[in-house]
Amino acid sequence: MKAAVLEKLHTPLSIQDRHDLNAPPGHVVIQLKTAALNRRDYWITQGLYPKIKLPVVLGSDGAGVVLETGDGVDASWKGKEVILQSGINWGDQEEAQAPEFEVLGMPRDGTFATHILVPQETLHEKPDFLSWEEAAALPLAGLTAWRSLFTQGGLKTGQTVLITGVGGGVALAALQFAVAAGAKAWVTSSNDNKIKQAIQMGARGGFLYKDDGWETSMAKEAGAPDLIIDSAGGKTYNGLIDLVKPGGCIVNYGSTLGNPQQINMFKLFWKQIRLQGSSLGSPADFRNMMSFIQEHQVKTIVDAVYPLEEVNTALERMKHSEQFGKIVLTCAS
Amino acid sequence: MKAAVLEKLHTPLSIQDRHDLNAPPGHVVIQLKTAALNRRDYWITQGLYPKIKLPVVLGSDGAGVVLETGDGVDASWKGKEVILQSGINWGDQEEAQAPEFEVLGMPRDGTFATHILVPQETLHEKPDFLSWEEAAALPLAGLTAWRSLFTQGGLKTGQTVLITGVGGGVALAALQFAVAAGAKAWVTSSNDNKIKQAIQMGARGGFLYKDDGWETSMAKEAGAPDLIIDSAGGKTYNGLIDLVKPGGCIVNYGSTLGNPQQINMFKLFWKQIRLQGSSLGSPADFRNMMSFIQEHQVKTIVDAVYPLEEVNTALERMKHSEQFGKIVLTCAS
Repeated sequence: MKAAVLEKLHTPLSIQDRHDLNAPPGHVVIQLKTAALNRRDYWITQGLYPKIKLPVVLGSDGAGVVLETGDGVDASWKGKEVILQSGINWGDQEEAQAPEFEVLGMPRDGTFATHILVPQETLHEKPDFLSWEEAAALPLAGLTAWRSLFTQGGLKTGQTVLITGVGGGVALAALQFAVAAGAKAWVTSSNDNKIKQAIQMGARGGFLYKDDGWETSMAKEAGAPDLIIDSAGGKTYNGLIDLVKPGGCIVNYGSTLGNPQQINMFKLFWKQIRLQGSSLGSPADFRNMMSFIQEHQVKTIVDAVYPLEEVNTALERMKHSEQFGKIVLTCAS
Repeated sequence: MKAAVLEKLHTPLSIQDRHDLNAPPGHVVIQLKTAALNRRDYWITQGLYPKIKLPVVLGSDGAGVVLETGDGVDASWKGKEVILQSGINWGDQEEAQAPEFEVLGMPRDGTFATHILVPQETLHEKPDFLSWEEAAALPLAGLTAWRSLFTQGGLKTGQTVLITGVGGGVALAALQFAVAAGAKAWVTSSNDNKIKQAIQMGARGGFLYKDDGWETSMAKEAGAPDLIIDSAGGKTYNGLIDLVKPGGCIVNYGSTLGNPQQINMFKLFWKQIRLQGSSLGSPADFRNMMSFIQEHQVKTIVDAVYPLEEVNTALERMKHSEQFGKIVLTCAS
């Protein structure tokens, strides 16, 4: 098998030949067809992730065919086309993951490879309407979007939702799910072209977040949103607190702009706002998402496809946030 | 009638003789037996409240007897002993109050008087098991505690709840409700004596919040709380984010220590925490609270009782946060 390995922080991944994998009890070996990048992979290469262990095969998203099943795994999985759930050992509380929770691709070897060893709990049948590229692009971003919008944000049909920083995988999945659920979705971006693309996907409109006073424009044009899905945080955060509807909710699944300064607490309590954190999602979230995309035939947005050998070029593209949708690798050996 | 009037900011209230009140349609005149102080009254005297209109009779909490009913009000209210709901015009959304919402005692004349004119919607029959002093002490603090704990905080039997700054009316009502609901309640205070009193009321224990590392002591002794009810905010807030259980919730109904600096956003999303604002409560919250205190025979904690004429002494006591429970005025003419 081949794998893209991070040997040392701040260095490119190296493509290495490795011994073939065998499936211990409760596990399966997957012949990967495709994998997808997440910002997490880039953070790890930069040392910006807790408890990094090297060397490691990066990659949290993958799809492929079950090659070998270990003892205790239903043998009918063998030969099946599957999509891998990125999280393992969520635990038994829907509210939050257990301390044992981990994500594929650090510390456990991930999907930037021709083969991967995974526990049975990660297996889901690949829906036929998704291509291999679309399948690999779904799990981590889709799950994060799903939990943020519905489990944590409680989005309902007819409500207005604002999704900030459209273009990234989670924001686009959130846009697709919100539109499919019958919500009025609006977006922000630093890039006018991305806003145009979002409108083609069903967004009601969008705002350039670098424009002063875009929040006022949104309030006038769209009304105050019931729900905001944000991964920026930082100094823009109080603007969202001003903007959100009284009784509304801001869900954060990231903070690419760092910590917010000086939360306006009076607004928090007088407007009866909820600031909700969200990360990834539970197995129940994943199953609900899979049913939803099946019902609504939601196809993941793929930005670009690279062969596994060009993984460093792919990481570079993500680093500069040029993408609109997911960056995918083809893993065929 | 007599009333304690705020003529000018930063001056004592003056006791004045006024013309008797008449009830226009939809309204009633109440002969007040008792009133209670809230921090809001003090903020208003200091100009620290939005849209202050003077002169005004302060006071949001009151209990008394219906003296006169206006047209359109069921005449059977006449002569009844009532407790007044402090909020008017909540609106039709449970999530947050409408822009028209107001609280008795600014801009509308309040309860620091022998008589008051109120719309019918404020009337609730006084439960027999509450004295006049206990009745006046209930509405604003009880309602704020109720909404914070249950409507916003979703407290369930068996959960662990931490109530910060025990001694104030809302914190004490929250403690009483939490204990009555079968939750494990813990408290913080700056005063060891207040913690001892809280334990006598059913708290499992308490911590001096000025002690460095009290959060660690709490985590060891009580486990991480599912819910924290806070009205301080400020620099102590990130300690609460560290302390609360993954998937847990911090409800704020005030920010006496000002705005928190630098919310740790990574902890917010990785721990899947909810930061929830809460203010006062809806008519439905009030009805639910009244049923609950009836069922559990919860009697409001009264700290001290002053005649109306000594309202300025009473305000002074609240200013220094010396009280344990509500400060009450007797209003008999």
